[in-house]
Amino acid sequence: MADSAIQMDIPECRDDEYKEVAWAIPKFGSKFEPIWINRPKVQDNHVKFEMHYCGICHSDCHLGLNHLGGSMYPMVPGHELVGVVTEVGSKVTKVKVGDKVGVGCIIDSCLDCGTCKGGDEQYCEGGGNTHTYNSLKTYGHIGGNPDTQNFGGYSASNVVHEHFIIKVPDEMDLEKVGPIMCAGITLYDPLRHWGATKEGSKMCIGIVGIGGLGTMGIKLAKALGHRVIAISTSSNKAELAKNKGADAFVVSTDNASMAAEAGKMDLIINTVSAKHEVSHYLSLLKTDGTIVQLGLVPEPHTVCQLPLIFSRKSISGSLIGGIAATEECLAFCQKHNIFPDTQLVEAKDIDWAWDQLTTLNKDGIRYVIDIKKSLTGEFVPK
Amino acid sequence: MADSAIQMDIPECRDDEYKEVAWAIPKFGSKFEPIWINRPKVQDNHVKFEMHYCGICHSDCHLGLNHLGGSMYPMVPGHELVGVVTEVGSKVTKVKVGDKVGVGCIIDSCLDCGTCKGGDEQYCEGGGNTHTYNSLKTYGHIGGNPDTQNFGGYSASNVVHEHFIIKVPDEMDLEKVGPIMCAGITLYDPLRHWGATKEGSKMCIGIVGIGGLGTMGIKLAKALGHRVIAISTSSNKAELAKNKGADAFVVSTDNASMAAEAGKMDLIINTVSAKHEVSHYLSLLKTDGTIVQLGLVPEPHTVCQLPLIFSRKSISGSLIGGIAATEECLAFCQKHNIFPDTQLVEAKDIDWAWDQLTTLNKDGIRYVIDIKKSLTGEFVPK
Repeated sequence: MADSAIQMDIPECRDDEYKEVAWAIPKFGSKFEPIWINRPKVQDNHVKFEMHYCGICHSDCHLGLNHLGGSMYPMVPGHELVGVVTEVGSKVTKVKVGDKVGVGCIIDSCLDCGTCKGGDEQYCEGGGNTHTYNSLKTYGHIGGNPDTQNFGGYSASNVVHEHFIIKVPDEMDLEKVGPIMCAGITLYDPLRHWGATKEGSKMCIGIVGIGGLGTMGIKLAKALGHRVIAISTSSNKAELAKNKGADAFVVSTDNASMAAEAGKMDLIINTVSAKHEVSHYLSLLKTDGTIVQLGLVPEPHTVCQLPLIFSRKSISGSLIGGIAATEECLAFCQKHNIFPDTQLVEAKDIDWAWDQLTTLNKDGIRYVIDIKKSLTGEFVPK
Repeated sequence: MADSAIQMDIPECRDDEYKEVAWAIPKFGSKFEPIWINRPKVQDNHVKFEMHYCGICHSDCHLGLNHLGGSMYPMVPGHELVGVVTEVGSKVTKVKVGDKVGVGCIIDSCLDCGTCKGGDEQYCEGGGNTHTYNSLKTYGHIGGNPDTQNFGGYSASNVVHEHFIIKVPDEMDLEKVGPIMCAGITLYDPLRHWGATKEGSKMCIGIVGIGGLGTMGIKLAKALGHRVIAISTSSNKAELAKNKGADAFVVSTDNASMAAEAGKMDLIINTVSAKHEVSHYLSLLKTDGTIVQLGLVPEPHTVCQLPLIFSRKSISGSLIGGIAATEECLAFCQKHNIFPDTQLVEAKDIDWAWDQLTTLNKDGIRYVIDIKKSLTGEFVPK
């Protein structure tokens, strides 16, 4: 998709900006390089934090490789940012210097529409949310040069409006926190929206696809006290799913295995991001059950509406989660000691880590860049 | 579909049965004839009622013409039964002799599963519901010969377990009540399930398809205090929709008309029963909006999941409604003076009425058989 790639050279650093180290894909098709970027200086409602870690998400690769078209270069990916506050604007009340904080997939939205006010900033109806990177400055809550793009978390610091700062509990180990702000909330928010986090709720929950998202889903649903059924196209992931807490395992290509759990699930969370047929899983749902699609699959599904009618089943979708829900998710993970399975890498290893993510399927390991350590090496800008 | 038609000749009348007049399709492909059928005599929990009217539903034609396969003949159709109680079993507490009553689409279910106990007998998970006709006796709540099929409302009386008897308010005009038990509850129940009958709720509701179901939907949603938008493929139905109470009209084949109401609807109820693409209507929904499919369309839809994910929209379905909901619907219709647009016919006119339903599209008119009058004519069994 070279044609649709957008090259946006970085202008001079303005007075309301500062220079910062980052690791970027300088132009479409290139490998990672250390570069200098401009970040906005702190204004009234802004929070600056020193980056300690940034998770590498599979969707970084999709955007970095311009799989969806329209990617902006140089690109500094990263939407699983964690660090420690070093400066706050005069009007900031949410955090103070020294606090542990994070930033997830979004750094701005209109903050004025019904969904923003309802805590679902990810579904902003006032013009859409602003992604943490590979996005332009739409709403004016982000400082610095308004004509430049936003850069993500593969960098030494960031400055974000306090609304989009996520407070991380003091006791949490920052190394493990980053992926919670993407994989964690992506699974937690649909559980929350469809009633699984309600006190006393007792559900049967299916998780389709046992990768990074799926294993997080199993851990969360299990910690919430539900019966959890892992669903995969083959039995290869059965032991992994069981180790993560699944009560049962369904091989979706095996009729007998599907029949054994037919009509039992209140909720299915489907993490599959390859082409598939959502209808295939409807038989597993109870009356009034819902299957929630999480994967950005552009190929359409073939859906016959008769099972929807005869058992009032629903097909829905879900996208990450809002700021308050993300803080709730962090607190839940802290309380129940739920963390993604992570492996630290340095900035010089990002290309290698992306190769792993795009070619192998490493049982749900999330790679996390150790930013502080990366800054002590040679892979830094001149 | 002659091959799949099932011929079940009517056996001798047993001691626990009585003979009754009915109008039937004697065998696949035949016209209506008056015949004698056997009905179960009243037992402990049974209610016998004299039939005053029975509505003719379009789905009677589908079953009578064996469009779905497996239809049983002789067939006495009719699932919009209304009349007056003439006898009750010793254990009946719900109604007494002289009460106005009705029976809708189902006359039995397991009464023991979660959905039955929750008042959603139509989604019975204990083995499925038993349709008012063209069905066998599964659960033992129906008396008479257990090896015979059930006959519907094109008949002079019926005997039904009190659980499936719907009490009709005394003040209601029976002539208008029958279709409420099918078209009415089919629209009322999804409104109820998705929050539109909650005190104080204020929604924007789309109704797709402005026929018998759609016009009922407009009347109900409007009486509930919501903004109602009628949606049709052409502007032909615009005036009809407005007359029934619609606040706005969308021509779904016109991009500008669709764009004018894009993102505004909390709930869309889709009554279309011809092949169509449900995805086409998703742009009209708000974040968290649901489109509910009502039509028994066997051809699959092509659904891309991205709009579901980016706005947490849902595609669902709904099937008639439970017994308690049907009584609630009747009371609501009585209170707000909402009735289907009906036209009385006699039993001798059933073939004609079916022709109208299967060939024309008469702006939502529901034909209703005047049973008492039909019994005084010559179209009765010898």
